[in-house]
Parts: sequence; C-alpha cells; structure tokens
Amino acid sequence: MNYLALSKNELVKEKTRILNEYEKLKALKLNLNMARGKPSVEQLNLSRGLLDVLNSDSCCTLKDGKDCLNYGILDGIPEIKELFAPVLGVESGQIFVGGNSSLSIMFDIISFFMTHGVPGFKPWINQGKIKFLCPCPGYDRHFAILAHFNIEAIPVPMTNTGPDMDIVETLVTTDPTIKGIFCVPKYSNPQGITYSDETVKRFSALSTLAPDFRIFWDNAYAFHDLSDTPAHLLNIMDECQKNGTQDRPLIFCSTSKITFPGAGVAFLGASKNNLNTIKDFYSVKTIGFDKINQLRHVRYFKDYNGLLNHMKKHRDILKPKFDLVINTLKEEFFENNVISFTEPIGGYFISVDVMPGCAKKVIALCKNIGLTLTYAGATFPYGIDKKDSNIRLAPSYPALNELQVAAYTFCIAVKLATLEKLLEG
Amino acid sequence: MNYLALSKNELVKEKTRILNEYEKLKALKLNLNMARGKPSVEQLNLSRGLLDVLNSDSCCTLKDGKDCLNYGILDGIPEIKELFAPVLGVESGQIFVGGNSSLSIMFDIISFFMTHGVPGFKPWINQGKIKFLCPCPGYDRHFAILAHFNIEAIPVPMTNTGPDMDIVETLVTTDPTIKGIFCVPKYSNPQGITYSDETVKRFSALSTLAPDFRIFWDNAYAFHDLSDTPAHLLNIMDECQKNGTQDRPLIFCSTSKITFPGAGVAFLGASKNNLNTIKDFYSVKTIGFDKINQLRHVRYFKDYNGLLNHMKKHRDILKPKFDLVINTLKEEFFENNVISFTEPIGGYFISVDVMPGCAKKVIALCKNIGLTLTYAGATFPYGIDKKDSNIRLAPSYPALNELQVAAYTFCIAVKLATLEKLLEG
Repeated sequence: MNYLALSKNELVKEKTRILNEYEKLKALKLNLNMARGKPSVEQLNLSRGLLDVLNSDSCCTLKDGKDCLNYGILDGIPEIKELFAPVLGVESGQIFVGGNSSLSIMFDIISFFMTHGVPGFKPWINQGKIKFLCPCPGYDRHFAILAHFNIEAIPVPMTNTGPDMDIVETLVTTDPTIKGIFCVPKYSNPQGITYSDETVKRFSALSTLAPDFRIFWDNAYAFHDLSDTPAHLLNIMDECQKNGTQDRPLIFCSTSKITFPGAGVAFLGASKNNLNTIKDFYSVKTIGFDKINQLRHVRYFKDYNGLLNHMKKHRDILKPKFDLVINTLKEEFFENNVISFTEPIGGYFISVDVMPGCAKKVIALCKNIGLTLTYAGATFPYGIDKKDSNIRLAPSYPALNELQVAAYTFCIAVKLATLEKLLEG
Repeated sequence: MNYLALSKNELVKEKTRILNEYEKLKALKLNLNMARGKPSVEQLNLSRGLLDVLNSDSCCTLKDGKDCLNYGILDGIPEIKELFAPVLGVESGQIFVGGNSSLSIMFDIISFFMTHGVPGFKPWINQGKIKFLCPCPGYDRHFAILAHFNIEAIPVPMTNTGPDMDIVETLVTTDPTIKGIFCVPKYSNPQGITYSDETVKRFSALSTLAPDFRIFWDNAYAFHDLSDTPAHLLNIMDECQKNGTQDRPLIFCSTSKITFPGAGVAFLGASKNNLNTIKDFYSVKTIGFDKINQLRHVRYFKDYNGLLNHMKKHRDILKPKFDLVINTLKEEFFENNVISFTEPIGGYFISVDVMPGCAKKVIALCKNIGLTLTYAGATFPYGIDKKDSNIRLAPSYPALNELQVAAYTFCIAVKLATLEKLLEG
C-alpha cells in the first residue's frame, strides 16, 4: 500500500486501522529502547574472559621491564600500541593510549586547542568566532563538544561516499575561521557509510585557509563489520603523509564496543609532532592512565587475529538484529514510499528518514507507548533537523524477541505520524 | 661535630674525609631513587587481591540493578561513593567518582573554570591575570597545572599548623584576582604537616574579594598514617556549611596510594551546586568512567574497616623506612646544625632544609653517584626555591637495604655541599 497514492477516505480508513494497532501495542505496556549504540548483555558476555586474564599471581611486568602495577608510562604500554597499530593505521610509535573514552581524548584536545592553540598558532579562544564542519546526519556527542566550547557547527550533507567534498572544499578554502571537522569515516554514525578512497584523498589534499585546521577522524567502528565483504577505508595517515599534511588528522578509536563500554581502552593515532604536543599537555594533567587494564586487553586478545576473531562473535550477535529491523522496515513499507532507510554493512545504527515534518511526532508516539528512541534532531548540530525527518535506530541492545516488537512498534508509529501528516496536508 | 663551629683547617680536614666517603659510594655504581612518592613492590603486592575479586563468573550488577559492564552512571557507582564518603568527609550524594587520577579531575575543573568560569561568574580566562595561592613547600604537580594555564602562583609560607593564615587572609581580602588555593591539608607534601582546627576554620570563614574563589583541598593522604596516634583533620565541608561557604571547597582523594597507582579510583567531594555543574561539564566529555574498577574496589575492601585494615598494612611497610631515613639523618647530623628535617606521622615524604644555597648542589652530588632525588626547587612554584634549601625525600620505593645506602649517600652529599659552602664563605 502506497500512502502517497491513497485518497482521503482511504487514508482515514488506514489511519483507523493503524490507530487500532497502536492502541494494542500501548496495552502491552512496553519498555523497550533503541536509543543508543549500547552492546547487549550477550555481547558483553563475549568479553567476560577479560576479567580472568589477570589475577593476584600474574606477572604484570612488561617486556621492557616496567611494572604495570606502579606509576609511570604516560602514553600507554608498548604492547597495546603494537596490538592496535593496525586498527588505527599508524605505527605503534604514533599512538597515545588514553583512559577509557576516546570522546574524552577528543574533548581534551579541543579544550587544549581552545586555551593553548594548535602548536605554533593562537589559542582558538582568542581567534574570535571559530567553526567546525559537521557531516550530517552525525553523532550528537561530537556536536555537544562543539556547543560546549561555543564553536559554531556548520552542517555538511553526507553523500554515499562521505561528506559532500565539493562543499567541504569550498568552505575550507573560503573561510579561515573553520578550524576542523568531525568525521566517523567508517560505518558512519548513523548512516553506516564508509568514506570512499576519493573522499579520503580529498581530505588529505585539502588546501585549508586556516593553517591550524585539524581533522578529528573518529574511527569508532574501524572493524565493526556486519558483512563478509566489509567496507575498506583508505588509510588517511598514509594519504596525508604523501601530501605533507600528516599533522592534520587526529585518529581515534576505542574498545568501548569491542570489550566493555566504559571499561575499555581509548587510543589516539597522530603524527609525531601532534603526539609530542599532546603528550606534553597530558603530562600536566595526569601521571598516567590505567596500565593494568591495558595489559588485560593485551593478554586477552594476544594478537590482531585474536581481535578479529572477537569481532566476528560480535557480528554473529548483531547481524540478525540488523536483519530483523531492516526486514521489518522492508515488509511494513513494501511499495510505500514514505520512508527511506540505510542497510549498513557495519557499525551500530540504521538511519531512517521519514516524511519531512514527521520525525518528532514518530519519536513522541513511540515514547508514549514505551519505546525510547534517540531524541528528535539528535543527528544534527544544536538538535535542529530542519526537515524534521531523520531518526537513528540502534538495534544492538534489545534481545531479538524484544527487537521484533520494537521494530514493529516503530513502523506503526511512522505510519500513524505519516497518515496524520497526509491528512493534515 | 658541629660544622658551624669548625675552624677553616678543621673544615678542610673534614671535607677530605667526606670526599673520601663520597668516592667510595661512587665506586659502588649505585642506582637508587628517592624522587617520587612511589609505592614499593611490597606495597603493590598488598593489593594484588584486587585482581581476584572479579572474574568471568562474577555478577557485576549493582544494588540498583544497573550493569557495571555496560555504558552509563557518569558520576560513579553508589557502592563506591558510600565506601569513600567517610574518607572525603561528605555525604555519598556529594561525591563524583572520576577516572584513575585526582590530579586529572583538578586539571579538568581548572580548565573548565578557565573556559567557562565558576558558575555565575566570568570565565577565568577573560578576567585578565589571575592568581592562586600556593602553600610552600608544596606539590610540584599542582604548580604545573597553574603554570600550564598561566595562573600566577603566589607562594605562602607553611607553618606547623598549615599555611600562614594571616598572610592568606591579607592576600584574599586585598586582591580580587586571587581565585583559589591548592592545599594538601593532611600530611602535607612534602612536610607531613596536618592543618590545625583553627586553620581549617579560618579557611571556611575567609572573606575573599573574589566571589569565585575556590579551595582545592587535595586530601591525598587522608588516612595514610605512620603512627598509632594519627593526626586529626577537621572536616572542612562541615565548617564551610556552618559559614555558608559550602561552595568553596573542592575535596579530592584517590586510591593511587591505597591500591594501584594509575589503576585506582579518584574522587571529588563537593557541594550539590558544584557537583551539578561539574557533572554537566563531564557529561559533555565522557559517557562515564571505569565502573568495573570501581566495583573491584568495593568488592575488595567490603567496608570502611576493610580500608582501614589495608592502610595498616601499608603503614607496617612504610614506617620502618621513614624511621631508617630519619634515624640516619639524626645520627649523621647529631649536634650538627646544618640541616633540619621533618619527622612526619603520615604521608609519603620527609622534607629537608639544608644550608641556604646548597640544595641544588646536594641533588647534583647525589645524581652524580646514582641517587636520584626530586629536582631542586620542585617544592616551589616555577621551580624557584629562593633560598635553594628545600629537598623532598621519598623513602617509600627502595627496599630497606637500598634505602640505608640511599639515606647515607644523601647525608654524605649534604655534608660535602655544606663543607664546600662553608669553605667558600
């Protein structure tokens, strides 16, 4: 049934039917959540072995003789740098290992650039109004950091190959107040888009008017594949090195969605120049991060293959959930062109676009009957989705049987909101 | 032998004797370190049981039903707040649990006040030159944070009862650019002085010209006793509440010197006002800290008595080390008034004052023959000890037999530097 082809009478009839479905769901007093990219209990259980690898008898001495139990080693233990170098796509000497949160490292670096400037340049806070580019839809926590520091967020539309690079190039070559961009280059949040080789090359070759322009390359889903033929992301550091722009990218990843969210390890990959500055800065802030947890991760995974095998287990749990939601959307909206959605081959989200003007309504309708979604507008800076159309679904947390109800509930809410909109218009 | 009473000939003769001792020590090719308050391997072993309390079979669900393995709980698990409330001297609802480093929380808060201001006031960065008071001798990492943010550090002399409060009161009531003070109120670093009740009361009653004045109360050695009759520190939050100044103190502690340095848990105790602001700020920076490590600490210590018993074991290891160094100093400088030193009943340091103009020389002489001490001037802002007299000794790390050599080596270096100085003059 294509809503767009229905007469007013047919719309009214369909609305009655859908409202009836909606009331039935309401009667179930649901308590479901597809709001955040939260791993399920099953996924967490995959990493429980991490709690066994160190015990009171363990030798916690590193290859270089240093003791993980004591103070020292600001930038992380060499063993974990080696393990994650291929994930970050840099040499192990180009890695800074932080605490449990890559978001926190991003925040710290922006805070540092605000008060002290990118090395060699004026503090951002003394440069008047400054701006960041934000590929949209995007990640709300990136936008929140910018809002916190009063950095203006300029939305840049996403394409199937990453941010619209024509727009990016035009903006950075005409506006010297644009100081950076937040990117989730692989399995982007929320669309699951992986930047094309050309996009990465164009990023590395950008001629920015701002000499202190930095790319925050948040590779949160570096190998969080959902397919046998995973996406390939070109190595930005290699490309930047070719172009002499190696100080431009700051590459982030963490184990939050590999081991335990909140009790994982976060990484920064960067040029030696950037790394030295950032280490100097952190040396004022802390004596060092949790090396025991770093060691725990090394002992648990052993090597890169151990990491890959572990990710396969995540995939085995996640893939059926994504399939279920996508199949439900396909079935419920078969030949009904009032919705479009992504079919990601990796990452944590499905991005849905409903009829303009309907997203807030859909989210409220879901909320009313016990299904929590990310707040409307979350995927745009300042929470403003001008079209009021984009909704991010996170299928990871609910169990499959719950997810089935959640996905159906979502579809009913979309239908109801769409029908109301069509009947208004 | 009192050097100050010797003739020139006697000084020359003694110098020959001491130089001979110094050369003997040099021949031993020592590699000793009394630089930092680093727990010994024996002390670290006290906490190895912490690595056993959680394993792959553990239930990591909290009393309130939340899962420590997943995202969430920005401000720390309630269980650990309850455990450490008596250490911080605040209610558990007044606690923010951070990562592994209290220094890092101090840094973050100062950074936040710089860019955003104490709530209700202009950002510190927009207030022109601002200043902090620094009781001296003090902790170099506090001074480093101030230097990083270009906050002028004003030294305030320490007395036996804490900072000279006459000076503190005069300064804060005449200079509105003084925005804060760093205090180590119990077993101060490096002197081991505990602030008297009167000092704490005067802090709580300060009439500061700056309305956005904050006390950074770094209670790093809250119950790190070395005696059966531990020092008592008056509860600053209670006193401030009496005076309506409860938004003034920010109270810090961590388990760095209780369990594992770098893999412990850090805490902030503050008024609800301060806490709400700081939580809002951290909610932009991170989703949350390592709750599994928080849970590990709770399960390991069980309750406050568990903590106290654990601290007794630390004391059993540390006390003989402090005794050894202090006895060596007493013996070597019996009736020789060229040195004064503290005899702390808690904390991690012995503070030594050598003859003015000799500290750098002593530290260099030690370094030359393989004994590393904290750099000269470390206990003063900008590394400038005008008298060139104060040296901080940290007896915790070396084993007793090493410490004996280290303490003796230090004494010989002090004697040599003093003799050279006396012969110059």
